[in-house]
Amino acid sequence: MTQATRQFSLGAFLMQTGHHIAGWRHPDAQADAGSNFRHYVALARLAEAAKFDAVFLADSSGVRSTHPGSLARTARSEFFEPLTLLSALAAVTERIGLIATVSTSFHEPYNVARKFASLDQISGGRAGWNLVTSSSSTEARNFNRDDLPEHAKRYERAAEFHDVVLGLWDSWEEDSFPRDKASGIYLNTDKLHVLDHRGEHFQVRGPLNVNRSPQGRPVIVQAGASEDGRALAARTAEVIFVAHQTFDEAQAFYADIKGRLPAFGRHPDDVKIMPGIFPVVGRTQEEADEKFEQLQSLVDPVVGVALLSTVIGGIDLSNHDVDGPIPELPETNGPKSRQHLLVELARRDKLTIRQLYLRIAGARGHQQVVGTPQTIADQLQQWFEEGGADGFNIMAPWFPGGLAEFIDQVLPELRRRGLFRTEYEGRTLREHLGLKRPTRAGSAR
Amino acid sequence: MTQATRQFSLGAFLMQTGHHIAGWRHPDAQADAGSNFRHYVALARLAEAAKFDAVFLADSSGVRSTHPGSLARTARSEFFEPLTLLSALAAVTERIGLIATVSTSFHEPYNVARKFASLDQISGGRAGWNLVTSSSSTEARNFNRDDLPEHAKRYERAAEFHDVVLGLWDSWEEDSFPRDKASGIYLNTDKLHVLDHRGEHFQVRGPLNVNRSPQGRPVIVQAGASEDGRALAARTAEVIFVAHQTFDEAQAFYADIKGRLPAFGRHPDDVKIMPGIFPVVGRTQEEADEKFEQLQSLVDPVVGVALLSTVIGGIDLSNHDVDGPIPELPETNGPKSRQHLLVELARRDKLTIRQLYLRIAGARGHQQVVGTPQTIADQLQQWFEEGGADGFNIMAPWFPGGLAEFIDQVLPELRRRGLFRTEYEGRTLREHLGLKRPTRAGSAR
Repeated sequence: MTQATRQFSLGAFLMQTGHHIAGWRHPDAQADAGSNFRHYVALARLAEAAKFDAVFLADSSGVRSTHPGSLARTARSEFFEPLTLLSALAAVTERIGLIATVSTSFHEPYNVARKFASLDQISGGRAGWNLVTSSSSTEARNFNRDDLPEHAKRYERAAEFHDVVLGLWDSWEEDSFPRDKASGIYLNTDKLHVLDHRGEHFQVRGPLNVNRSPQGRPVIVQAGASEDGRALAARTAEVIFVAHQTFDEAQAFYADIKGRLPAFGRHPDDVKIMPGIFPVVGRTQEEADEKFEQLQSLVDPVVGVALLSTVIGGIDLSNHDVDGPIPELPETNGPKSRQHLLVELARRDKLTIRQLYLRIAGARGHQQVVGTPQTIADQLQQWFEEGGADGFNIMAPWFPGGLAEFIDQVLPELRRRGLFRTEYEGRTLREHLGLKRPTRAGSAR
Repeated sequence: MTQATRQFSLGAFLMQTGHHIAGWRHPDAQADAGSNFRHYVALARLAEAAKFDAVFLADSSGVRSTHPGSLARTARSEFFEPLTLLSALAAVTERIGLIATVSTSFHEPYNVARKFASLDQISGGRAGWNLVTSSSSTEARNFNRDDLPEHAKRYERAAEFHDVVLGLWDSWEEDSFPRDKASGIYLNTDKLHVLDHRGEHFQVRGPLNVNRSPQGRPVIVQAGASEDGRALAARTAEVIFVAHQTFDEAQAFYADIKGRLPAFGRHPDDVKIMPGIFPVVGRTQEEADEKFEQLQSLVDPVVGVALLSTVIGGIDLSNHDVDGPIPELPETNGPKSRQHLLVELARRDKLTIRQLYLRIAGARGHQQVVGTPQTIADQLQQWFEEGGADGFNIMAPWFPGGLAEFIDQVLPELRRRGLFRTEYEGRTLREHLGLKRPTRAGSAR
């Protein structure tokens, strides 16, 4: 292979016990990860020592499973609120980016703007916000509702929410605070901008009570792949995390997003597309396959069927034959794109319910790569060089070993090919990702 | 003095550049405290080395001053969101309690319950929530409102909010998570309790997605001194921070609160009353007076008048003679108790506007003690031994020196008298404060 002329970004997706639904049962897994802060400190430091761009925390504002048998057998009911956890990790890391998921459906923009601005100050410019609209009625029931607003309405609110947050982040220009003890002048009011937003969903005066971000603004991350999600991302996202099953899907998504940017006055480099990758690494293909089968063998059918039901939008499959085909599914108000991709996958590969849940138990809609460091590097290189990705979000099957194996075995191969950094060059998340420092939008005082 | 048979609690009130309105102008003050995380790390470690029970962060969900001249001259417009900051401090401290203010008027109970539960996990049981209802329309305008709901309505919401949060914290019994890899049983559903709250202000199903608190539940702190505030505190508070000008006021408040407890089945020891103390320490009385006058001389009249206007409930005093008396004031929707205390003070001591703002520029309604280690210790001892306080919240005039002087000079005197600990005995905030570990309220699954 030739030296790459550009390098890709890597995020470490830190999901409690690991991304595989049965990862917590791995003999070496940290089963109490969801309540173990020291576990996360070790993982963040591991990813930082490996020069990852960022750690990434997903979120759910509730305990999602309503199937008691599955709930009892999965490690998804206790976990840290992402911003609380990332703030603590900011204090014990120096360089790695810190990306937290926060839903626009269950929060107020002033609070979200403040918290990410504070995290950015604490971390010296390493914060990123993964903006989601949430997708489960289980979460809605913790917030005074019986169900979520419909998909399009959630995205309308999300778009306005985003604009308010950015407006608040622009409350202060650079160097607004001379803090001159002699004259008694603490701040320069000419550099203060009051937002005074009055929109359909929000009325927010401002200004924000946090100084301007060390990286200009925290980085905006999104994960929506539906039409509404793509439209919002093309206008607002700086990083897109996305789930693909095939290279063709990745390429089509990449081209679609990059093609939408000029309409918003944006350059292709203004958005970094980072598909999720679920890696299982072996010294040989046989060892990798064995490792994967070990994890698959730990999936209880009760858990597998319930997982599949959730992922396809809350449709109960427990009354269907687990070794029969996927039934016809009604349209739902859930995450349309994901259901669509999965059902297509099942039809294409003629999968039974059991086979489909085993397909998603690990990668859950993301690209699963089970192989040697060489074959995994080949695939990442192809996606990167042939218009499928600007980087990858590494979704380790279990922790800490699943991430450590990727770092110890695959990263050296990626570095040999010149595809990934050997040292941090920048200080901020924005610098790691190669994103421009934003300039303040003009706004009235 | 004789050895005390019980000891009092101490909180360190960490307010950016210090509690004195001109504290940031002190020659040795850390003027950029509001954006300087390392400053807070140093303060938290200083307070921990001195064995304080907790650090305490106040809050405001906005930039309060609307007077540009005063805004430009005060250090109150940039600060960290308290929970974000405390989470980061949790990672770099081991024993000290971490109390953050969060308003019930601008948040959702599920989010607040999660964040404090997460902070409690991260810190090993050191979290406390200072429940406030907020008091300024400036804040309301950042949350889709033109003004706050009226005082009584805010307290109604706060009371229900509190009950929801406690219910969510009781979602899981002790040892709900066996996490047994062999059987595949991660959690015991018999120990899971779904809240299913349906009240006037909130509809919250639960359960919480965070494990039970290491200290049973985070500690509930309140600061309300109005009738509504006292009524809520008597039922729900475990610590009360309060502002008093005189020992008589402190004694009356203490007796009133402790007297209300039996009606709620509570014991006097179930609530710790901790008045704020603003100390200026000198080796002699003259040195203390000089230090105080140095700070007072740094108060710009523009700042002083604006501060007073805010503290008495948003009534503009800038058109009145600064050397004339306080005018008659209309009833407001702000913090009634504070306005009431201040106006009483002005009438009692026949103070001009200037004299009154200088009175509050430092302690801002709290007890100001300017003296030697002996006289300061005398006063704390009297309040503690004669029914005025169970502990104190130390509001240093400026940082870091104002706190360091209290620690270096007053603490040895308090320890000589046996009034304050020399080592931590417990691990959790609840243990430091001498509060019982709460038992789960019975609730249906």
